Amino acid sequence: MTPGTIHGVGLGPGSQDLMSVRADRLIRGATHVAYFRKKGRRGHARSIVEGLLAPDAIEIPLEYPVTTEIPFDDPLYNELLAAFYENSVAQLREIAEAGCDAVVLCEGDPFFYGSFMHLYTRLQGRVPVEVVPGITGMSAAWTATGQPVTWGDDIMTVLMGTLPEATLVEHIARTDALVVMKIGRNLAKLQRALAEAGREQEAWLIEYAAMPQQRIRPFREVGDSVPYFSIVVIHGNGRRP
Amino acid sequence: MTPGTIHGVGLGPGSQDLMSVRADRLIRGATHVAYFRKKGRRGHARSIVEGLLAPDAIEIPLEYPVTTEIPFDDPLYNELLAAFYENSVAQLREIAEAGCDAVVLCEGDPFFYGSFMHLYTRLQGRVPVEVVPGITGMSAAWTATGQPVTWGDDIMTVLMGTLPEATLVEHIARTDALVVMKIGRNLAKLQRALAEAGREQEAWLIEYAAMPQQRIRPFREVGDSVPYFSIVVIHGNGRRP
Repeated sequence: MTPGTIHGVGLGPGSQDLMSVRADRLIRGATHVAYFRKKGRRGHARSIVEGLLAPDAIEIPLEYPVTTEIPFDDPLYNELLAAFYENSVAQLREIAEAGCDAVVLCEGDPFFYGSFMHLYTRLQGRVPVEVVPGITGMSAAWTATGQPVTWGDDIMTVLMGTLPEATLVEHIARTDALVVMKIGRNLAKLQRALAEAGREQEAWLIEYAAMPQQRIRPFREVGDSVPYFSIVVIHGNGRRP
Repeated sequence: MTPGTIHGVGLGPGSQDLMSVRADRLIRGATHVAYFRKKGRRGHARSIVEGLLAPDAIEIPLEYPVTTEIPFDDPLYNELLAAFYENSVAQLREIAEAGCDAVVLCEGDPFFYGSFMHLYTRLQGRVPVEVVPGITGMSAAWTATGQPVTWGDDIMTVLMGTLPEATLVEHIARTDALVVMKIGRNLAKLQRALAEAGREQEAWLIEYAAMPQQRIRPFREVGDSVPYFSIVVIHGNGRRP
């Protein structure tokens, strides 16, 4: 039997019409649709495709055993997640080996800080896997600010709020354009790092980019908490005729 | 009269089905379609939408007076380009002020190293302007390599080959994941910078990502020239369960 293909499909930043035409076609035509979610939740990826799935599509929710309950540097965290990914891969392999294709819904762009890559590296070489890139959340964020993010030969740096403060400061000070993601619990550290690098006044916070709750404000007006879907942007200012 | 809206529409990396559903709808429904091109050429942006435009759509090619004939640090270059952008904006304003919408075709993502931003900043506040983000060329490039580009808290840096060699070395040495664009005439400099930063062996060259001529090879196998649509990628290697 010819095995089916597992498609890791980038959904883009969260607005249904910002997914690609290829993603839209694959999702509407899918017989098997898998997606990550937190236990007991609907799942953000699943909610983006609401109304697109075929009525008889088989859904395969992949439920994280843990998200932020255990720190990510605890060996138990790695152990639990690795087992979860292995189990998810086993489900997908079974579908492909029965000759069916499956779509895995991926927020943003699958290969850019995505969760799908943990399945991808375990599926590679075993069953056919294809990846459809998507519009990143950061593209939606800088578009929302109404200002171009990079010009000419601007340098752009993408940082995660989970990095050590000194690393954040060093890179924020040396870049033209900046994107920071995974802010959540790291907000106070990021505030200090932006201030220490002397760039707090240039930064914008974009919450829920391209989603109905989208909100943009200067970073200096941010209080002591931000939602999960938050991105910081500093615009470059390169040469321009 | 209510003025029309100018839509800067991201086409994505070059494959028609990698544009967003929103872009696809706007382009198919457009009465006025503008795009940049080099004099005497068809225009890459225009070729991406071949077969999508309404038969009676009015096309507005915006022809660069100069591309690489004059170095970009020559004052004449800036002067010629500024006049060209002003003239392009005048054409678009006339359409909007007559109450019609227009679509401006933008390769990749309009706010990410795009040409549209030069029109955008001149149109802002004068007529309504909307921007549709797109899948970037770099997303298509790292997807083409078949390896995730960023994991965990990897740092990603985007550099232009036009930067000074010392700046390239400094940033290449300090990042996890790397993207380099605008390589063309800067190839030899980039080869030296990657070697000096000790990272030549990790780099990939992707030509024509997501286009029919797509080609991927280790950067060390590259000779002494690359096509315009070339991107260098180094993959990050962050924590992974």
